Amino acid sequence: MTSPIVVVGSVAFDSIKTPFKEVSRVVGGAATYFSMSASFFTTVRVVAVVGEDFGQRQMKVFEGRAIDLEGLQRVPGETFRWKGEYGFDLNSRETIYTRLNVFDQFAPRLPASYLETPFVFLGNIQPQLQLDVLNQVKAPKLVAADTMNYWIERTPAELGRVLERIQILIINDSEARELAREANLVKAARRIKAMGPEVLVIKRGEHGVLMSRDGDGLFAAPAMPLEEVLDPTGAGDTFAGGFMGYLASSGEVTDATLGRAIIYGSTMASFAVEDFGLSRLLTLDAEQVHERFRAFKTLTHFDEV
Amino acid sequence: MTSPIVVVGSVAFDSIKTPFKEVSRVVGGAATYFSMSASFFTTVRVVAVVGEDFGQRQMKVFEGRAIDLEGLQRVPGETFRWKGEYGFDLNSRETIYTRLNVFDQFAPRLPASYLETPFVFLGNIQPQLQLDVLNQVKAPKLVAADTMNYWIERTPAELGRVLERIQILIINDSEARELAREANLVKAARRIKAMGPEVLVIKRGEHGVLMSRDGDGLFAAPAMPLEEVLDPTGAGDTFAGGFMGYLASSGEVTDATLGRAIIYGSTMASFAVEDFGLSRLLTLDAEQVHERFRAFKTLTHFDEV
Repeated sequence: MTSPIVVVGSVAFDSIKTPFKEVSRVVGGAATYFSMSASFFTTVRVVAVVGEDFGQRQMKVFEGRAIDLEGLQRVPGETFRWKGEYGFDLNSRETIYTRLNVFDQFAPRLPASYLETPFVFLGNIQPQLQLDVLNQVKAPKLVAADTMNYWIERTPAELGRVLERIQILIINDSEARELAREANLVKAARRIKAMGPEVLVIKRGEHGVLMSRDGDGLFAAPAMPLEEVLDPTGAGDTFAGGFMGYLASSGEVTDATLGRAIIYGSTMASFAVEDFGLSRLLTLDAEQVHERFRAFKTLTHFDEV
Repeated sequence: MTSPIVVVGSVAFDSIKTPFKEVSRVVGGAATYFSMSASFFTTVRVVAVVGEDFGQRQMKVFEGRAIDLEGLQRVPGETFRWKGEYGFDLNSRETIYTRLNVFDQFAPRLPASYLETPFVFLGNIQPQLQLDVLNQVKAPKLVAADTMNYWIERTPAELGRVLERIQILIINDSEARELAREANLVKAARRIKAMGPEVLVIKRGEHGVLMSRDGDGLFAAPAMPLEEVLDPTGAGDTFAGGFMGYLASSGEVTDATLGRAIIYGSTMASFAVEDFGLSRLLTLDAEQVHERFRAFKTLTHFDEV
């Protein structure tokens, strides 16, 4: 029943500064975090572009994982670069720069082997590129997407077309409020679902996740309380990878699998923030994932009397 | 198995201003919200003081409920008054004034009928008064307390003596961080438990509750997502009332009853914020409480596969 997933998004060089440590030019990007995370559950087919500076040493992070890189283009020029800096509480982040580089001219082109992939994740890129990918996949079973304030403000029409064609939107709380023009998240969820998606997943960082399923059925999960949080970079994409990875591995989308998918997504994200960049995900094993999933059960379970 | 609870705390006149509405001189206070909430589960014995301006009309809010007012003193002078103002997101609150009035000379004196009460809740008042109450109760089975930044900063020695004698401390996240001098809540919980309490309950407002039980066993619950939040005044005390009320009604303190107590506390608080002051609690019935408790189960439940 396990289905593969196609993901489109950035593969990047990140520079990250926190009050505790700074790293430069480490492998990052939405598609990277997503695919690393989802590969714990199923095969991920990556659609992205890198420059000539992205070499064998960088490619090593994908090695030995269920990550198909046939759709990763290498073109002349420099790889997408991002630099961010965090304040002391690690909740506030400032983007120092975003250099699109080779992503500026990116025309996603799916290899023939990707065309019948049942699960699709459209990472946070220009909505027109999300549509270009979606137009190439034949009869996908489930499409989920991420977006951000930049596209909500600059390309609302294209984003609107994306929303009409996806089943699940995964965004953070401030983006949900901005997209719906409504501060109350319960009301915002209803408005956003009227734009197309049947399911809305709202990421709230250290405060967990809120999901609006079919109708008004809400599901909420706290974040795992952690003793060490070193770097939140990639947590959202890692969440999406665990969420979609679990759904694709279960092969069906029901209230029950959606709930477990939220917990698997939260589980994966809780590891990602424990070290800088991809470091923690690179040493993670399946048993640790299942152990933390069970810890989520202990964390949240109560019996009715 | 149901045990009564003694609560000490303020019975007050509140004035509340939000961007949407303003009310003046309505009945409030920690002991009021606590006892209204806990009375859905068991009998509550109130220890507090009011002035001559607190008349029959004000006493009506307690009528017909399992609230014993033998320990409510009426003395010459004015009742405790508090005025607070909320910003647009209702998370930030400014205290406009606090007038202790008759509370300034308050010497809590428990009626003979209160002395053998098994469950005790020490509301947020001067730690020395909390100790005075505790010294009068004979062999309590469970003592819980609230406190605030003011006492953490001004009377740390007295507060320390309170902490040594209670089993459960119920405070908000900023108070937990200040008391432990530690920003990370998992580490802060460990430090605070080393000061005395076996269980720490950390209230996080709209982000729910985190509880550290025996050892390092954590329990977390989201707040119920609500479409209308009109006034957060009293939410914390209403939470404590539901939490202690359920524990006292179950008669035993185990990991299972503590988890359900968090959910009953969250349930009661979710009603309190839906209208101004005590209004929503005054019209609430037991069936609505149980229905929302079940909604919490739906909100948070997931199966392991």
